[in-house]
Amino acid sequence: MLSDGLAAVIVTLMLVPQALAYALLAGLPPEVGLYASMIPLVVYALFGTSATLAVGPVAVASLMTASALGGVAVTGSPEYVGAALILATLSGLILFAMGVLRLGFIANFLSHPVISGFVTASGILIAGSQLGHILGIQGGGHNLIEMGANLISEFGSSNLITFAIGAGTLLYLFLCRQYLKNALIGLGLAPRGADILAKAAPVSAVIVTTAAAWHFHLGGAGVNLVGQVPSGLPEIRLPSMDPSIWATLAPAAVLISLVGFVESVSVAQTLAAKRRQRIDPNSELIAMGLANIGSGVSGGSPVSGGFSRSVVNFEAGARTPLAGMFTAVGIALATLSLTGILAFLPKATLAATIMIAVSTLIDVKAIGRTFHYSKADFAAMLATIVLTLIQGVEAGILVGVGLSIGIYLYRTSRPHSAIVGRVPGTEHFRNVERHTVETDEKSVVLRVDESLYFANARYLEETVMALTSQQPKMKNLVLACQAVNAIDASALESLEAINGRLKAMDIRLHMCEVKGPVMDGLRRTHFCEELTGQVFLSTYDAWKTLCLS
Amino acid sequence: MLSDGLAAVIVTLMLVPQALAYALLAGLPPEVGLYASMIPLVVYALFGTSATLAVGPVAVASLMTASALGGVAVTGSPEYVGAALILATLSGLILFAMGVLRLGFIANFLSHPVISGFVTASGILIAGSQLGHILGIQGGGHNLIEMGANLISEFGSSNLITFAIGAGTLLYLFLCRQYLKNALIGLGLAPRGADILAKAAPVSAVIVTTAAAWHFHLGGAGVNLVGQVPSGLPEIRLPSMDPSIWATLAPAAVLISLVGFVESVSVAQTLAAKRRQRIDPNSELIAMGLANIGSGVSGGSPVSGGFSRSVVNFEAGARTPLAGMFTAVGIALATLSLTGILAFLPKATLAATIMIAVSTLIDVKAIGRTFHYSKADFAAMLATIVLTLIQGVEAGILVGVGLSIGIYLYRTSRPHSAIVGRVPGTEHFRNVERHTVETDEKSVVLRVDESLYFANARYLEETVMALTSQQPKMKNLVLACQAVNAIDASALESLEAINGRLKAMDIRLHMCEVKGPVMDGLRRTHFCEELTGQVFLSTYDAWKTLCLS
Repeated sequence: MLSDGLAAVIVTLMLVPQALAYALLAGLPPEVGLYASMIPLVVYALFGTSATLAVGPVAVASLMTASALGGVAVTGSPEYVGAALILATLSGLILFAMGVLRLGFIANFLSHPVISGFVTASGILIAGSQLGHILGIQGGGHNLIEMGANLISEFGSSNLITFAIGAGTLLYLFLCRQYLKNALIGLGLAPRGADILAKAAPVSAVIVTTAAAWHFHLGGAGVNLVGQVPSGLPEIRLPSMDPSIWATLAPAAVLISLVGFVESVSVAQTLAAKRRQRIDPNSELIAMGLANIGSGVSGGSPVSGGFSRSVVNFEAGARTPLAGMFTAVGIALATLSLTGILAFLPKATLAATIMIAVSTLIDVKAIGRTFHYSKADFAAMLATIVLTLIQGVEAGILVGVGLSIGIYLYRTSRPHSAIVGRVPGTEHFRNVERHTVETDEKSVVLRVDESLYFANARYLEETVMALTSQQPKMKNLVLACQAVNAIDASALESLEAINGRLKAMDIRLHMCEVKGPVMDGLRRTHFCEELTGQVFLSTYDAWKTLCLS
Repeated sequence: MLSDGLAAVIVTLMLVPQALAYALLAGLPPEVGLYASMIPLVVYALFGTSATLAVGPVAVASLMTASALGGVAVTGSPEYVGAALILATLSGLILFAMGVLRLGFIANFLSHPVISGFVTASGILIAGSQLGHILGIQGGGHNLIEMGANLISEFGSSNLITFAIGAGTLLYLFLCRQYLKNALIGLGLAPRGADILAKAAPVSAVIVTTAAAWHFHLGGAGVNLVGQVPSGLPEIRLPSMDPSIWATLAPAAVLISLVGFVESVSVAQTLAAKRRQRIDPNSELIAMGLANIGSGVSGGSPVSGGFSRSVVNFEAGARTPLAGMFTAVGIALATLSLTGILAFLPKATLAATIMIAVSTLIDVKAIGRTFHYSKADFAAMLATIVLTLIQGVEAGILVGVGLSIGIYLYRTSRPHSAIVGRVPGTEHFRNVERHTVETDEKSVVLRVDESLYFANARYLEETVMALTSQQPKMKNLVLACQAVNAIDASALESLEAINGRLKAMDIRLHMCEVKGPVMDGLRRTHFCEELTGQVFLSTYDAWKTLCLS
């Protein structure tokens, strides 16, 4: 409990500027970020299965929130804030329902390259969105094209003092990230402590720039400050029930839920594996769902598990969910006591904090690795990145998911198949084109490397028909089915058609290595009676019967 | 050539009433059906690969046309007819583009149960849509609910004479279908001739009811007649280029194209197989595309290959594409000479013709067969039928396709896997739960029955982790990959995670039966170096090394 308390103090110090910064990123007033860092943490501590996942506002979800809310209200208006609460509640309900219905597997359809590409592109978008704050202009936009246009048109009205604060903080944080940890270790600190301290560098930047803004009255010099934050705890209140806004926000809520869930679970699993603990995805869905509902009814925006914050929590010694509870208390104390001071915090400082934080999201190496391993995965990744950058987050992730499913379906619709022969002296059969094997021109063994289903049923018919003309002496065709994990109704009709056509050509059709569940299905039909040949247990049995006898 | 000519005469006799009837079904003036039966036939004869496919207006495409046009114009208005020409041209362009880009495989995603369910439901909808004409009322509607509501509200204004004609024709055609063929055979006709003559029964009904309508001036008694059909050949003219109508019709055009293509190719392949001929799907796409463009620019509606008409063409002796050319000439002659007479044809006769024709589309046995073989396929089929009936054709087919893809993805996302053991005395390995086999508690062989990709990567992680707790003595885990046809980037990351976690538990991970293309991919990464165990050629090799030594 003592170590949980220590972890909570450190996470609170880190979370206060982040909560303000991500509210800024989402276009929301600063208190919304603070409110999203109280109740949700308590709720997650009660229901979550990870002891160390630090829940709260995060960068990517904030970017997606801004994109979703931009479609329903003017940034900063009361309707905009109201829509944020609806979005959090809606995301929570979606996550909760998915957990209860055990639909966590849906998140698996966000493939790794798509998520990785999406996070990288989001990191670039977020960094771009903060340039305006660094320059002291409005900026904004939901994709690189809009952002670029806004920056160019407003560049003339930049504020030099703001830029000095923003660029200075950026440089300071960059140097801290690069050198502070090793410098502290050089001064004799333990590596873990040095790491945590280095990650708290933004706190020092916040203190210094806030003090400067207060002392030099920078607010009067055109520097945008955070301004008055209502002091006090959030009220519990149901969000607006306007069904048209709920319906408009629903698609965005689904995407925010799925992305947040995938990210949270992967952080939680990475940390749990280090301590041999287990995360249950469906329980996580319920916990994340309740945390988001908690955020929505207490004035907060959508939340999920933050990577760097969870790592700090873990490294600082959090062992039980109590750490999350203590953090919530810490944020509440900060909200009660610090708001007068935080009013003087320059927005440029927060923008610099965000830019440094999201620089870790941009993973260029993953792009190279994916390109090297699989061009199809790379295509889905690239499409996600490009679409996210030029169209925005929703288009990017939808196209990425659609494309990766499409690529998978396309691949399975044109299955690999190989004529196999016997590896001499064994009962093992391999591709004639890759191995030196024995074959028999009268009895051909065709291994089909895919489950047979509607999308490839016709392709199989064509493959077999082409084979009959390439192998004129063929009298027996054996379909080796070790890779056929299912045969659906469309494929069954195709097999019947193949059997009939081969019969007309005086070629018998056999099957071998048919798996149990597949054979169970075929036995329920007339196919086995109509089959001109036999069903053998193994390829070797077929070989013995057809070629050796 | 003589047999082609004879076939053409028979098909022309059959096609004239069908062309008028399907125009009626699509809500179009009768001449549109005739125009769709001229130029498209000539174009298909020039470019198609089937010698016997009879192209022209068909029932399902006409129903889909009515549904698509209902959204853009008032039935019967000049805009409605203009939109039909656009729809035909657009379908043609889509089919042509698919052929040139070799995208015929897209049609494979219309699984057999979905198509079969869709055609059955369409048959029911078409029959329902004709009830109004039989009763002499307006009727209409794009789904059973609308049709029922219209019939009930208008039932009071039914016309008795119309009903007598419609019901009489229906009964006559039904009796002809049931008994005429055998009666004719009893009278000494050859079975083939008797079959063709029985299928021409609608012609006699058309002649008798037209004569009656003319003689008794039934038009004046409130019986709806076909009315004045412009005599003369169609003009060649580009359809309207209004981009908003093109855009509105595009989704429907895609569906009409795909459904028409699937039906045409399956008819063409069935007939071609009987004469050992071959159909090239991509050439068919181009030919059907040009035929539809031909229809659209010559005043016709979308066309495709008709099943019963093609069978008659085949049975009547059509041997070359000339039969199609001759049929086009026959329709042209009919349009020039018969329109004066056809003006007296009661619409109720045409409606009865349609109802009898579409009764063959309703395939209840296929529903039972699918239910018996695969509950998943049945679910997709049932959804297609129900949605088509209560929502309309577009919703039905889209939900069916979506659901069948979804079911496939769901199934592959939770792959079957089995611990396998050695069939005693052989080199063959089978599921321990289905066969009596030898196993070794220190070395477990897990056969994964699915390609590894993003949707099931996490599931594999969970399966392996569960296995480690079930098999506490395990020191070696062998993944038998004969059914793994691909490993994508997401699954590679999962394999790396599994390898790492097993390493921490002091269990070595091996692989065997890895296919050539999959191994090629893995070799491009660091995975093989990081793998704690070995990659064996066969399961038996792994067994020999790990269990026998």
